[in-house]
This record gives sequence, structure tokens and C-alpha cells, in this order.
Amino acid sequence: MELTLVGIGTGNPGHLTLQAVEAIRAADILLIPDKGEDKQELADLRRSIAAGCVGKDDARLVTFPMPGRDPGVPDYKRRVQLWHDAIAQAWLDALAPFAGVRKVALLVWGDPALFDSTLRIAERIAKARPLDLKVVPGLTSLQVLAASHAIPLNRLAQPFLVTTGRHLRTHGWPAGIDTLVVMLDGESSFSTLDPAGISIWWGAYVGMEGEILDHGPLSEAGPRITRARAEARARRGWIMDIYLLRREGSGASAP
Amino acid sequence: MELTLVGIGTGNPGHLTLQAVEAIRAADILLIPDKGEDKQELADLRRSIAAGCVGKDDARLVTFPMPGRDPGVPDYKRRVQLWHDAIAQAWLDALAPFAGVRKVALLVWGDPALFDSTLRIAERIAKARPLDLKVVPGLTSLQVLAASHAIPLNRLAQPFLVTTGRHLRTHGWPAGIDTLVVMLDGESSFSTLDPAGISIWWGAYVGMEGEILDHGPLSEAGPRITRARAEARARRGWIMDIYLLRREGSGASAP
Ligand SMILES: C[S@@+](CC[C@H](N)C(=O)[O-])C[C@H]1O[C@@H](n2cnc3c(N)ncnc32)[C@H](O)[C@@H]1O
Ligand SMILES: C[S@@+](CC[C@H](N)C(=O)[O-])C[C@H]1O[C@@H](n2cnc3c(N)ncnc32)[C@H](O)[C@@H]1O
Repeated sequence: MELTLVGIGTGNPGHLTLQAVEAIRAADILLIPDKGEDKQELADLRRSIAAGCVGKDDARLVTFPMPGRDPGVPDYKRRVQLWHDAIAQAWLDALAPFAGVRKVALLVWGDPALFDSTLRIAERIAKARPLDLKVVPGLTSLQVLAASHAIPLNRLAQPFLVTTGRHLRTHGWPAGIDTLVVMLDGESSFSTLDPAGISIWWGAYVGMEGEILDHGPLSEAGPRITRARAEARARRGWIMDIYLLRREGSGASAP
Repeated sequence: MELTLVGIGTGNPGHLTLQAVEAIRAADILLIPDKGEDKQELADLRRSIAAGCVGKDDARLVTFPMPGRDPGVPDYKRRVQLWHDAIAQAWLDALAPFAGVRKVALLVWGDPALFDSTLRIAERIAKARPLDLKVVPGLTSLQVLAASHAIPLNRLAQPFLVTTGRHLRTHGWPAGIDTLVVMLDGESSFSTLDPAGISIWWGAYVGMEGEILDHGPLSEAGPRITRARAEARARRGWIMDIYLLRREGSGASAP
């Protein structure tokens, strides 16, 4: 079996690459999670992006029930590992009726390489049967954030760190790095920093309908963003957001 | 004037997004650098990617002479700034005959936000005339490297640093981070590290014709990659390569 993980970008059908469209069209089966822990709107969006390439009643669209995480398992890593095992089993079960099928494609939000577990789950499948694993890259929320603000990710010749809200909260701002991009942050973790000399570029639903952007000195924009975030989440029922933090000085040149 | 910077991915026409194709088609003028410091093969590739969307003799393709950096300016930052000034002037000169033109598109290798000066040059133009600046994101070499190796960029819930060969050489491996992605490295800077516990995933010409991949423990793969790199550069006349370094242990979970 050939399993292709296809990055689809961050919720805009225009984010699909020509390669991704081609991979979706060439697939014998398109494996799509039903809602699971996702909101209905996201599940619908993923399905409609697939349907844009193959037609919405196409028999190639095969849904699988997305298992939930078991809150009864106390250890975080163990809980995630068991969850990945369960998802791998759900894929195998969904594919079982299609024994002869050669090309399976699975749509992944953004890029499969960035804070996504699909590759780790695919490795489990590879242990159960011979698997030819392919990845088609997709736009990440990182790049879409930068594009929407028309800003560079890095300062001239300087590095940047891609990190999570939890990591920022528990480890603080790492020494010697002037730019952080923070993902997976449900808790406005930027508010744990001393805002002096820091600017923020924030985006919610980037690239999607209803995109919201804000930026400015963290001291002013931070509280504004915390409010906007709460309002948007209440209004829409869910939120995905990401932000870039840049620290002045430290000898680094202007953006 | 509306200026759209269009990320085109890393040299594979299939990397274009549907948005990028649309932006290229909608442009009144497509601004394309002639060879400049690039190799002929790269200049041809960029032109042929544009031509894939608008036809190769399309009158909308407007070339501008790409200025070189002035080696007579000793200070690195000053030299780069003067160079950006000169490029901005070259854009304005190339556009001068098209006074009434509304939509200009400029193709950018990979993503305009990642180690690229086009955004900084566009800011200079914005000082000379009213400018509506848009960015269409494109696949980065980072993601294409990860896709070609079918590996995640980050360890489970862990951050990663995107950096340059020079920065790695001068600052060493930063504390508390287990994954580095290194770009812009003409000098196999990984060889300045103690290889114990480090693995490397390397790619040259990723996503393009002639892609070369290698990976393994840095102690074994490092010298092999240094040789392959030199051979490939000699054979093809130029090289673009990128790699991911991952350090074992430090409490981080398996990839
Ligand atoms: C599980 S990660 C998946 C990332 C995805 N693979 C990518 O390439 O962007 C989910 C996180 O990505 C970010 N994200 C994804 N899509 C987004 C969007 N449209 N707008 C803002 N943030 C987004 C948020 O930080 C969210 O918490
Ligand atoms: C000036 S930067 C431009 C990066 C580009 N904007 C991007 O998004 O990938 C050039 C560096 O990108 C990397 N690069 C770009 N294209 C590449 C390719 N096809 N294969 C390997 N590395 C590439 C190399 O590290 C190279 O030194």
C-alpha cells in the first residue's frame, strides 16, 4: 500500500499546491476523520477541500471514527501514545474492506511535519504491513501568519524558534534568540513575559474566512489580543491562533 | 500600485499553490530578475515556472537587471543595505515604462518570509510611492526537506530552531533545544559540532530534479555528506542544501 499524507494548508482551498491536488486525484481512497475532537466546522472544511478535488459524493471518500484521548491515563506521553495506537487501529479498520486498494491519501491540516501526529501514526501502520509512505508538504500556519502580516519570520540572517505556548510558559524566553513563533497556545502565554521591548504579530483563523490580525508592542497589544481571542472563541465556538514575538536590541538588526 | 510577492516553492512547478497560480495569472506585470548572482539554471527555472502560468512569450514578463553586492563596502550590514537599495531602484526603473500598471507580481523562491530580502526591498519601494503590498506564501525548503525524508520537524510538543550555517558555527548548539534546521550553509558547519548523540537529515536540491538525500548518525553521515556536497556542486555548478539536526536525550521523547 502507498500512503500519502497530503498537507492542505490552513483552511483556504487556495492553499492547496498543484502537487496536493494531483495526489488527491490520484488516490484510490481518501481517508478522512469524522469530527472526533474537532469542531463540526473544521471537519466540514476538510471534507469540502477534499470534495473540491474529487467531487463530494465520490466513493473514494472513506470516513473513519476519530478516537478520543483517554483522560483516565495520567501520564501525558503515555496518553498520547495510546491515542496514536487507537488512531492507527481506526485507519486499519476503515481500510479493511478495501483489501486490494493501492493508493491511500490522508489530508493533513497545514503541513504534516509541523506539530502534527499523522507521521507518528503512519509509522505504527508501517509495523503492521508493508507501507510506502509519501508526504506532500502543505503551507503551515507559520507562513500564513507571516504572509497575512507581510512580515519576515527571521531578522536579517538571524535564527528563530518555533515553539508552543506550554513551552514558553514553563521555560520563558530562550537566551540569544530574538524571534519566537508560538503555536498551540490556549492560554495567552505571552502574558507571562515582561513585555518591555517585545512586539507581537498575532493571527487567528489565518488564511481562512474570518481571519483576525493584530500587532503592536506587547504591552499594548497583549491585553487587546487576550480580549479579542476570548470574544472570537465565544462567537465561533472554537479558535486557532498563532503569533510571532520579536525582541528589540540584543545587537540584532531591524526587522 | 499593488505589489504581490508570490512564493513559488523550491523549484518544482508542482509546489505552486492554487492561490499563487491565480496571483500570477491576475498580474498585469510579472517582475523577474535576470540571472544576477544566480546560476543560469535557477534563472531559467524561475522563468519557466512563471511561463507555466502565463505563457513564455507573454508581454507581462518584465525582466530587471539584478544588481550585485559591492565587495568594496567592508561592513556586512551596510553592504546588504546598499544592495537592497540598488535592487529597489532596479525594480522602479523596470516599472517606469508601465506608468498605468496596477498589479505587479514578483516571484520569490520558497516563501517570502524565510531568509529572503524581497520584503525588505518592498518596504523601500513603499517609501517612494503608495504601495499595496500583498504576500502569497509558498512552500519552504524546510518543509520540502521534511517531506522528502518523511520526518516531523519537531519532537512531540518540543520546539525547534531555524538557523543559518554561520550562526551555528559562531554560537554552537543552543541550550535546551533538541532540533535545529540549518539553512544558508556553504561550509558543512555541522562538522564543527561534537557529533555524539546527534543525527542529521540532509537534502540538496530538495523537491527539484536531481534531489539528493542522506541521513544517519552525524559521526557517520557527516563526512559522507561533506563529500557528496562537494561532488554535487562540482557536477552541477551550484548547490542549495539544508539539513535538520536532532540531539538525543535531554528528556525529549523519541521523534
Ligand atoms: C496541531 S497544530 C497543527 C499545525 C499545522 N500542521 C500547521 O502546519 O500549521 C495546531 C496549531 O496550529 C496553529 N494553526 C493551525 N491553523 C491555524 C490557522 N488557520 N490560524 C491560526 N493558527 C493556526 C495554531 O497555533 C494551532 O494551535
Ligand atoms: C536565501 S535562502 C531562501 C530560502 C527560501 N525563501 C525558502 O523558503 O526556502 C536560500 C537557502 O534556502 C535553502 N534552499 C532553498 N531551496 C532549496 C532546495 N531546493 N534544496 C535545498 N535547500 C534549499 C538552502 O539552505 C539555501 O541556502
